[in-house]
Amino acid sequence: MPKQRRGPKDRSSNRKVELKAILQELGKKVYDSLDSNQFPSMDFPSRSVKNIVYDAKAKQYVLGSRKVTRSASNIKHIRPFTQLTWLAFFATQLVGQEKTSTLRDVYYSSQAYDIEFDDQSESDSIITDLETVISRAREELNIYPEERSAIFGDLDIEYTVRGYEGKRLNLSSHPDGYLIGPSLSSAEFVDTSAEMVIAVEKGGLFTRFVEEKVHERFKAIIVDTAGQPPRATRYMLRRLHDELNLPVYIMTDGDVYGEHIAMVIISGSARAAHLRDLTVPSGKWIGIWASDIAKYNLPTIPMNEVDIKRVHDLKADPRYQKGIWPRELDTFLKIKRKCELEAFSKFGLTTIVDKYLPEKLEIAKSL
Amino acid sequence: MPKQRRGPKDRSSNRKVELKAILQELGKKVYDSLDSNQFPSMDFPSRSVKNIVYDAKAKQYVLGSRKVTRSASNIKHIRPFTQLTWLAFFATQLVGQEKTSTLRDVYYSSQAYDIEFDDQSESDSIITDLETVISRAREELNIYPEERSAIFGDLDIEYTVRGYEGKRLNLSSHPDGYLIGPSLSSAEFVDTSAEMVIAVEKGGLFTRFVEEKVHERFKAIIVDTAGQPPRATRYMLRRLHDELNLPVYIMTDGDVYGEHIAMVIISGSARAAHLRDLTVPSGKWIGIWASDIAKYNLPTIPMNEVDIKRVHDLKADPRYQKGIWPRELDTFLKIKRKCELEAFSKFGLTTIVDKYLPEKLEIAKSL
Repeated sequence: MPKQRRGPKDRSSNRKVELKAILQELGKKVYDSLDSNQFPSMDFPSRSVKNIVYDAKAKQYVLGSRKVTRSASNIKHIRPFTQLTWLAFFATQLVGQEKTSTLRDVYYSSQAYDIEFDDQSESDSIITDLETVISRAREELNIYPEERSAIFGDLDIEYTVRGYEGKRLNLSSHPDGYLIGPSLSSAEFVDTSAEMVIAVEKGGLFTRFVEEKVHERFKAIIVDTAGQPPRATRYMLRRLHDELNLPVYIMTDGDVYGEHIAMVIISGSARAAHLRDLTVPSGKWIGIWASDIAKYNLPTIPMNEVDIKRVHDLKADPRYQKGIWPRELDTFLKIKRKCELEAFSKFGLTTIVDKYLPEKLEIAKSL
Repeated sequence: MPKQRRGPKDRSSNRKVELKAILQELGKKVYDSLDSNQFPSMDFPSRSVKNIVYDAKAKQYVLGSRKVTRSASNIKHIRPFTQLTWLAFFATQLVGQEKTSTLRDVYYSSQAYDIEFDDQSESDSIITDLETVISRAREELNIYPEERSAIFGDLDIEYTVRGYEGKRLNLSSHPDGYLIGPSLSSAEFVDTSAEMVIAVEKGGLFTRFVEEKVHERFKAIIVDTAGQPPRATRYMLRRLHDELNLPVYIMTDGDVYGEHIAMVIISGSARAAHLRDLTVPSGKWIGIWASDIAKYNLPTIPMNEVDIKRVHDLKADPRYQKGIWPRELDTFLKIKRKCELEAFSKFGLTTIVDKYLPEKLEIAKSL
């Protein structure tokens, strides 16, 4: 089958144009208020726990209708309002100059402008405020955390970052995988022969998959989430699904944390309730399920009290009320044991690819 | 200046041939003993603290002359001797089949052969025993930990791993950086225009360096050590120095842990005293020095008691007795403050590249 051209070529530049307009509008509102002798203010949805609600249709947590206002007329608001206004200015600079920054850099950069943050947690919180105001993730403002995960597979990308515009790369050309950083996150998808995406929780399994040619045998793009995936990785999974129309399968350790990694990829996190574009509602968790432990006779580790408490927490979560989600939580509680992806090595290093993966992909069709 | 061809093309295959001979010899010794009705045994240098000595000439910790013997004739040795023999067999399989494995995979793989390890720390320890017996790092046996760091710069590599033999890649083609995994660690270096290597402690600064074109402006290969570098990364730095004749500069946070990251790259760790090829004795730590904090007027964080205790520990270490090493430790003690690489953002995001880096590279010439 010939490769198909699928991604819209100008996705990235459209979003950037929109973003610049949003930021400009934000600044204009402040100036307009000042020009008409009004105190400038910004309002945006509250992120308090009370205003985080589960949206069954969107299959993710979203913010409710409560609003907060930051106004220069309120003495208590002057500090966060000033910080937020400065951050919007700084982010506009970053985007305009096509420079990236870490969360930590933002904290220190503020000092050049005599903007005071007590510590990074305060600046991180203002960054989240700005995300809420403009409904865009900080990554689109070129602000990244330190963590990086990786990707591998037959996907031609075209860079949009400065100095690399128009250059292309095939993501199967480096078998250790490509870091998902600012350049890859903002690249266009040009061409792929892949028919699915498989996200795995661990670098070791990612390397195993590359070695065993999962990308060819299953026509898969492989993503290493490196534990709970950074947001840039969740955004990448969403794009692979939306723009290339690829199903996303998730393989984790057989424990409550693995189950939750899959859930966060599928439904997002409460912390990111103010954002869209970070979820893959049609994603499938294909294991290791609690019920696979007995089925495949896998070596296990006993669950400890913290693990068990975590299962009870998730059982109360609205996203865990249907299908495999409560069933597997209950099985974990019953067997009180957990298991790692590497446990399959007991049956040979390639068993997880030769036997487990195809069996679970087959089962996934009926999920 | 035209690129030069520098790396010996057959380095990797020579080392592999040697390694296979060493493993075969190890197995032959066991069989020969059995054939002549002797209990098989292996002896190797002790790794006990008493036998780890600092070698001022090699500028690293090495093992002394004490030996330990594992013999099948000793009831207490049967378990570790059997584990070690199995591991040598398993590693031979890995190398022969060109498959990689994680430390965790080794632990689980043992179960397929009814070899008992109480937990992964026991199998990790036997892996270190085997490293000591054969004087080769586990990475050469295709056994890797989970951690990965990254590299970027004008360096053409040629893969030697299965399925990629002979394929080439230039390490400046992906601006988010290339993961240093099994394929890159075993690749040949074909060609470079670089004149130095700069290792940085953090992914954020790595991305900054790429954006500010440090690879072009300073003709540098940039390595993200992601904190204390995994051994595969130290091995890569050593190879970049030895095979391409490039000086290695190290830039870390301005704290006692940063100073020690630089020292481990230069002189190795006591834990790896049984190995060579993981150090760059001519490497230079170019900052952030304690004395740079006042010089560059950098924002700081107070040192806590743990930090201060760590300074005292290092002051007693034989590697910290000369030059900048004790001077900077003493300055940390005096000012009782530390500082991060991101602190330079106070003066603009590019100050660290435009001003600090060239000044420190100049100073490094006289170190």
